[in-house]
Amino acid sequence: MSYRAPLADMEFTLNELAGLPAIAALPGYEEATPDLVASILSESGKFTEEVLAPLNHTGHKEGSVFENGVVRTPQGFQDAYLRFVEAGWNSLPFDPDYGGQGMPWTLATAIQEMWHASNMSFGLCPLLTQGAVELLQTHGTEAQKETYLPKMVAGEWTGTMNLTEPQAGSDVGALKTRAVPNGDHYLITGQKIYITWGEHDCADNIIHMVLARTPDAPEGTRGISLFLVPKYLVRQDGSLGPRNDLRCASLEHKLGIMASPTAVMAYGDSGGAVGYLVGEENHGMQCMFTMMNNARLAVGLQGVAIAERAYQQARDFAKERVQSRAVGSNDANAVTIINHPDVRRSLMTMKAMTEAARALAYVTAAALDGAKRNPNEAARRAAQSRLDLLIPVTKSWCTEIGCEVASMGVQVHGGMGFIEETGAAQHYRDARILPIYEGTNGIQAMDLLSRKLLRDGGAAARTLIQDMESGLAEIAKLPGGDGEALSEELVVAIKELESVTEWLVTTANQDIVAGASAASPYQRLLGTVTGGWLLARLAVTAGHHLEEGIGNRSFLAAKIKTARFYADNILPQAAGLGAAVVRGAKSVMSLEEDQF
Amino acid sequence: MSYRAPLADMEFTLNELAGLPAIAALPGYEEATPDLVASILSESGKFTEEVLAPLNHTGHKEGSVFENGVVRTPQGFQDAYLRFVEAGWNSLPFDPDYGGQGMPWTLATAIQEMWHASNMSFGLCPLLTQGAVELLQTHGTEAQKETYLPKMVAGEWTGTMNLTEPQAGSDVGALKTRAVPNGDHYLITGQKIYITWGEHDCADNIIHMVLARTPDAPEGTRGISLFLVPKYLVRQDGSLGPRNDLRCASLEHKLGIMASPTAVMAYGDSGGAVGYLVGEENHGMQCMFTMMNNARLAVGLQGVAIAERAYQQARDFAKERVQSRAVGSNDANAVTIINHPDVRRSLMTMKAMTEAARALAYVTAAALDGAKRNPNEAARRAAQSRLDLLIPVTKSWCTEIGCEVASMGVQVHGGMGFIEETGAAQHYRDARILPIYEGTNGIQAMDLLSRKLLRDGGAAARTLIQDMESGLAEIAKLPGGDGEALSEELVVAIKELESVTEWLVTTANQDIVAGASAASPYQRLLGTVTGGWLLARLAVTAGHHLEEGIGNRSFLAAKIKTARFYADNILPQAAGLGAAVVRGAKSVMSLEEDQF
Repeated sequence: MSYRAPLADMEFTLNELAGLPAIAALPGYEEATPDLVASILSESGKFTEEVLAPLNHTGHKEGSVFENGVVRTPQGFQDAYLRFVEAGWNSLPFDPDYGGQGMPWTLATAIQEMWHASNMSFGLCPLLTQGAVELLQTHGTEAQKETYLPKMVAGEWTGTMNLTEPQAGSDVGALKTRAVPNGDHYLITGQKIYITWGEHDCADNIIHMVLARTPDAPEGTRGISLFLVPKYLVRQDGSLGPRNDLRCASLEHKLGIMASPTAVMAYGDSGGAVGYLVGEENHGMQCMFTMMNNARLAVGLQGVAIAERAYQQARDFAKERVQSRAVGSNDANAVTIINHPDVRRSLMTMKAMTEAARALAYVTAAALDGAKRNPNEAARRAAQSRLDLLIPVTKSWCTEIGCEVASMGVQVHGGMGFIEETGAAQHYRDARILPIYEGTNGIQAMDLLSRKLLRDGGAAARTLIQDMESGLAEIAKLPGGDGEALSEELVVAIKELESVTEWLVTTANQDIVAGASAASPYQRLLGTVTGGWLLARLAVTAGHHLEEGIGNRSFLAAKIKTARFYADNILPQAAGLGAAVVRGAKSVMSLEEDQF
Repeated sequence: MSYRAPLADMEFTLNELAGLPAIAALPGYEEATPDLVASILSESGKFTEEVLAPLNHTGHKEGSVFENGVVRTPQGFQDAYLRFVEAGWNSLPFDPDYGGQGMPWTLATAIQEMWHASNMSFGLCPLLTQGAVELLQTHGTEAQKETYLPKMVAGEWTGTMNLTEPQAGSDVGALKTRAVPNGDHYLITGQKIYITWGEHDCADNIIHMVLARTPDAPEGTRGISLFLVPKYLVRQDGSLGPRNDLRCASLEHKLGIMASPTAVMAYGDSGGAVGYLVGEENHGMQCMFTMMNNARLAVGLQGVAIAERAYQQARDFAKERVQSRAVGSNDANAVTIINHPDVRRSLMTMKAMTEAARALAYVTAAALDGAKRNPNEAARRAAQSRLDLLIPVTKSWCTEIGCEVASMGVQVHGGMGFIEETGAAQHYRDARILPIYEGTNGIQAMDLLSRKLLRDGGAAARTLIQDMESGLAEIAKLPGGDGEALSEELVVAIKELESVTEWLVTTANQDIVAGASAASPYQRLLGTVTGGWLLARLAVTAGHHLEEGIGNRSFLAAKIKTARFYADNILPQAAGLGAAVVRGAKSVMSLEEDQF
């Protein structure tokens, strides 16, 4: 159950596909020299392998526990978090004005993959802090920033996101938590559920970002405001004051991420928790949107991370487990199961899908940096458009891959995969939250359809498709039949994506129910084809490096063969996914409710 | 979390597709009158809904526990098992000579679906007893039958299967448990793992069927013998004698089926457990093959059962949970989520796949009855050939559907799906064993390829494909555009299956590694197309009944629309699956082991 950070694939994808060197040259990222980047990646590899990974399965078994109002994280988590903060890992991508290191998000994305792959339950803590930091950076007052940001950027205090209530899940607008003005602050009353790291013992203070309604606020999402509600009030001098009127009411018993405390939070049992307005009243949802791209990318990345971890474990098992003679061999001796073609197919699928998902996540992160930092307005806008299009795809497709690869990992282990001790089952359990939280994948599909496809009439999707098409000639040049096969499969899949995109834009404009019925398979189609295209681009670069004698030949050759496997085995799913959109949408609503 | 036996769909599928009335007319099944069959189904529905279903989630939470050498099943299991035996449920399909009720396996299959859907952990106990009964019925001596069968048929004693050892999983031939002749019996020494219901507190005796090697037995599967090893020795008069030299060493901590005790069994700590040879020495594997079809069908059926249970739970939740306004509606009021097209797509997919899997399992059961009982030799042989072909497909495809539908069920619940209390997560956990045990789905694919496809040169597959083609004209006649759409999608999918089958037979004959590399997607393809064909046949009958005014119109109309949904949305996957066979096989072995 050990973890090795896949540095070779990470660096190749970062440098040759996501364009990290160019991103590091953007204004604001001057600190990100190639040497520093390489050293950060390697140090992060060590930290996550040595400190976080060993706590993953012990944390799963022990879980976070709620007793007498306090939450106890599993043994070793407190110490690991302290070391995490001390090493500065929390502050990597943040503003140097508040103690951040000003590194590109693209780099931070690879670093975060390591957190989640080594220990997803642990990684959720800084992930949530990150969201709170971004909210405050963008919408906080100067005083709020000065008081909270340095501690949160450092990771000494952690952050949470409080959106969900029992009646308000995907429908955030249905929330009821109240915020009543009271001098320079508000008094918050209500219950929030599914609050990740809502209470724990790893940091001195917890800064809750809470969505609530002021009296007389309009109904729905237009009447929601954002509040900063600290666990301990902070005095003028920055020291911790009295405990605020909020508490953890219980922890959820979950399918997975057992070490990550998922809290039910009660605000205002004794009259109201002190909360400070962030941004304007009734603009809470807009504030949330500023961090949504980052948060959704981060969850997609968790899918990559779990897939990588599950792949490594299954691969290591398959190289050790001896069972049955080789297919078609005269040698009666049993061989390691990696030699069995069916196991090999599983491992190839796991590897290809994981690398494709990584490519998509890193490219999306690069778009995020470009949209933020590129000094050229046209380039910045193009990056923003690409980012907005890819975010729901990254969140949904990478998390589905996380679940599917984790399930294949269980299967490769045979009976041992079903035994908790083996560890494969933990990945299967942990992964299952990913398609759900931060907007279910169905919500992502509706976002893709309505905000990313219909709002610009399909323009951003068309630009992506054109980019795919423009690279085909170069792909076809790869030697040894690989280029031909890759480009042939891609031509077919891209054509399918193109026609299905046009169908969906046209259809959904006339009939939004038909569009919504088709959104999920369309989202999967877009991910599947984009993944195949990105792997093919990596293969092209690998081909060039091989020609030029740069880099590790075995690694480069594997990149080409992995792209080929994806093209031969996974890209052809495009036809079925396209059919489920174009021919399938009309059957979706064909039954009456009582026929179910 | 309640369960309702889907009697309408079960009866329609049994009677109109599996041909239960004709099966009940076969010699040996005279007892199975239509009235009795209907009453058995309905009584079983009540029993499983009222007695077994309420223990499913409590059993999951409590689990079976191992303490001081004894296993304690969850509260209520003892009593439920007693009632199960008293009501005669265990004896349904067995030989009346030993107390069985002589009912067709096709009927028993539907009954067993109810056991597993209501409580799969519970259902595993009689499932294993069933395997032991079949072994004894076929291979036991008269004395063995008289001593053990009446108690086991009644369910007063339960049975187990002891194949796996730590080094011998899929490779059964690697087992090392020893059996040394000692007068009229053998002394058994060794350790067995993954023994389902290997030890428990629900029955007076447990009859272990154990594979072991006699001294000087040949290596591999040709040197394996089968032994009956009772927990308590049985005296001449049938009363229980002393405890045998065997014990449960521990229970596994598993991902799911928590209430089903999965034992590590130790034989012969004190010199050797008394075991009785069943069948001939070194013929243990052949004996096992006689029960393999039944056992694999039963596991496929568990996939159907879990899918049904997960579907019901998600459907009920979707009809109750209110969240967000309807897509495209001007009404601002929130609606139940079953009204959202994306949720509806999930439910339609779950329903269509579950019903297709049920159709496949019941049709396979019918082939089993036909192969056993049809007095016409040609018909009997045709049934055997169909049965042999469909068994690996039923085992693998239905269990994959079990996992996939259970996962969709979690997703429909959103955040609540990840909370254990909701119950959706249990199905997701329970389902995950199904593609693994009773021969992993990869082993099934190799069985399909080598024993079912190559051995007869594809003849059985061709006959199935011809049957599919011969029904197309009738399907096309369904009114309202459904027939046209169904037959068009089927034509394409069947053609794909046909050409891929020919490719695989030819290729694998020349290159078994290429064949093995393609076996899993081929197996999935065969299941996907067969499922669509069976749903279309059910739709045809539904259309006739609608015309004739027979039966529930809403149910019949739903059968047609469900077949249509499957044809529009799932059948088109055939193209991608076919590609993964024909174009994909060559990439499977393209990496060296050190490139993983």
